Amino acid sequence: MSIEYIENLGRNAKSAAPLIAGSETAKKNEALSEIARRINQNTREIIAANTIDIENARKNGMSEAMIDRLTLTEKRISVMAEGIGQVVALPDPIGTLLSEKTLPNGLNVKKIRVPMGVIGIIFESRPNVTVDAAALCFKAGSAVILRGGSDAINSNKFLVGLMRKTIADFGFPEDCIQLVEDTSHETANEMMRLNRYIDLLIPRGSGRLIRAVIENSTVPVIQTGEGNCHVFVDESADLDMAVNIINNAKTQRPSVCNAIESILIHEKIAEQFFAKLDECWHGKVAIVGDKRTSDLINVERLAEEADYGTEYLDLRLSSKIVSSVDEAISHINKYGTMHSECIVTNSDENAAKFQCAVDAAAVYVNASTRFTDGFELGLGAEIGISTQKLHARGPMGLEEITTYKYLISGNGQIRG
Amino acid sequence: MSIEYIENLGRNAKSAAPLIAGSETAKKNEALSEIARRINQNTREIIAANTIDIENARKNGMSEAMIDRLTLTEKRISVMAEGIGQVVALPDPIGTLLSEKTLPNGLNVKKIRVPMGVIGIIFESRPNVTVDAAALCFKAGSAVILRGGSDAINSNKFLVGLMRKTIADFGFPEDCIQLVEDTSHETANEMMRLNRYIDLLIPRGSGRLIRAVIENSTVPVIQTGEGNCHVFVDESADLDMAVNIINNAKTQRPSVCNAIESILIHEKIAEQFFAKLDECWHGKVAIVGDKRTSDLINVERLAEEADYGTEYLDLRLSSKIVSSVDEAISHINKYGTMHSECIVTNSDENAAKFQCAVDAAAVYVNASTRFTDGFELGLGAEIGISTQKLHARGPMGLEEITTYKYLISGNGQIRG
Repeated sequence: MSIEYIENLGRNAKSAAPLIAGSETAKKNEALSEIARRINQNTREIIAANTIDIENARKNGMSEAMIDRLTLTEKRISVMAEGIGQVVALPDPIGTLLSEKTLPNGLNVKKIRVPMGVIGIIFESRPNVTVDAAALCFKAGSAVILRGGSDAINSNKFLVGLMRKTIADFGFPEDCIQLVEDTSHETANEMMRLNRYIDLLIPRGSGRLIRAVIENSTVPVIQTGEGNCHVFVDESADLDMAVNIINNAKTQRPSVCNAIESILIHEKIAEQFFAKLDECWHGKVAIVGDKRTSDLINVERLAEEADYGTEYLDLRLSSKIVSSVDEAISHINKYGTMHSECIVTNSDENAAKFQCAVDAAAVYVNASTRFTDGFELGLGAEIGISTQKLHARGPMGLEEITTYKYLISGNGQIRG
Repeated sequence: MSIEYIENLGRNAKSAAPLIAGSETAKKNEALSEIARRINQNTREIIAANTIDIENARKNGMSEAMIDRLTLTEKRISVMAEGIGQVVALPDPIGTLLSEKTLPNGLNVKKIRVPMGVIGIIFESRPNVTVDAAALCFKAGSAVILRGGSDAINSNKFLVGLMRKTIADFGFPEDCIQLVEDTSHETANEMMRLNRYIDLLIPRGSGRLIRAVIENSTVPVIQTGEGNCHVFVDESADLDMAVNIINNAKTQRPSVCNAIESILIHEKIAEQFFAKLDECWHGKVAIVGDKRTSDLINVERLAEEADYGTEYLDLRLSSKIVSSVDEAISHINKYGTMHSECIVTNSDENAAKFQCAVDAAAVYVNASTRFTDGFELGLGAEIGISTQKLHARGPMGLEEITTYKYLISGNGQIRG
């Protein structure tokens, strides 16, 4: 039963995809702008739908932190609508001529950017992802199948209904944007096997969700979001800068993927550094440290190996004292998730070595890892932050959810 | 036992990868050129190892066509060495600055091309793939794990041994190039789950092999090679050109992925077209046709739906008469494998419509699909032809087996 349900969504998306693929930028932008307007106009109705989700969540004993992520307020709804405006303002990647040449035999070869086709997104609670992701896929010329969490189903139904109605009013097939309303595990699992219809699957959410998708998907996947990020404080570092960066990267928003989870401190400056860190934090952040860290600062407990691979997403981090930039690089390449990594140093040589050898999407010298974000890096709105090496790395904006094809024109050329 | 064996290869590759990632172009080229020289010098020894494989294959009752694919001759060995020379001549993609900007807050953001890391390749009989693939991965700065077929194991062992010894003589870790010597199914299956160590897996071979990899792999995969390619002859086509292109695309080398498997003929010119095709082929190519085709030309049998999805790789093709370019496009998007598709037409409008709407890596107007090949399109040597939309589409040369990262440098910037 649910296989048929999902296959039907897949078929609908595949049929709708060519009709949005060839659309003019202005037409897509008009529809998106109208979605933003109607979201603002329907604030009350959105909050009503969201209230049902919140009441159900309370009944189900959801934690207040999770309920907060689920909640749509007037302010959050207006930010959601603004987000669409930002997508409208981005240049349309579709149709860009990436290269062109004429071969000696007269064949003209153009490489042009084209839409991905059908994009599937599996995500968890936050209903604003529904609107962000749909807007990005729509602008990038792809049909999207959204599979949000059951917690947000009423909010998502309302928002997707509003978007479908709006794009239909502008002459687009409403199946350019579809919601998987059956939020059973089966439908998520079946989406992962729908490679006949889905060209790209993006999981957004917990490490557990992402691993399940990698394990089960036959659809090409882009991994996003798991961030076990480090700051390495080199022996030549400006220690005030190091504390300032670490404080920002850990405490400004501890629950996000570009927050740091671990610090590596060069042994030569460790004592001075921890004295300064303690002045800044006064125990505000729990430190799970190796033996040498524990000799210099109060630790919550001694670190076990598992700690170095843990994304705490909380006011807690692991700490290790190292004897060289090489040891720091090895540690990061062993335990990191290839997201965002930072060295604080005054040595150009160590900075270059670190940027070259650390295997991550974004490698920083003397700046907070919190900048790994589409808007912060000037790429515009993003659909996620890729932590794999295939197709896209780091923040994924519009270009990163497109593909290309070769258009080859001749006058009868055959191969000799 | 074999899990440990494969994990060990993975660990070795992961350790070797950073040492080749940062290598100078000249150093990589010197080692590759020396491999080419030694392959030529060892022609006799290579043939001796290959002879054992051929004898075993005969004992196992392998078909002569397959034995031909397995066989290395003096000529083929010299072509193999020349192939390495062509890889040497290609520009090194690594380190290319893809973009650079300085943000208002002073952060400098560079996007640079970097190696993939560890590439796994699972392939079948032909031992020349062993050398081609190793040379491309080496030049692109990645360590490679080669898992060829059991049929070619003696040839592969000799060739990989020669390459490992040569790169070691030039100061590279020999584990930049590794062969899976245990060619049981288990080792292939375990390679597909080795996402801790392998960044990209490329299957090269039959549709069955490729589907098994897609079904089982947790390592990101690029699908290659399955080519159910079509030529559509539009009503305005130059029919002599159409026959010439179809003849080339079907008969010049029927066993390859960019050969066509199906023709779609506009009803208005079908009678004239088939008369000309018959003059050219005189029954040399078996036609599996729909009812309307069978009214105009001798067919081997009537086509069933399964025929339209079949890659014959032989002197046989399916044929269908259609009433419009739209019907042709729908048919191709339903049954094609997104490889190479062609329209023969004199209508600019239909050419543009076909190139826009057909969902394939290479879409041709008035030229043979046989040009979908790295060398023919001027991209250089290729590691395969991608039929998926993620990461790379069409011929995959050096750039297509690399990734990128962001290098971000500041002077203490934190996020507000």
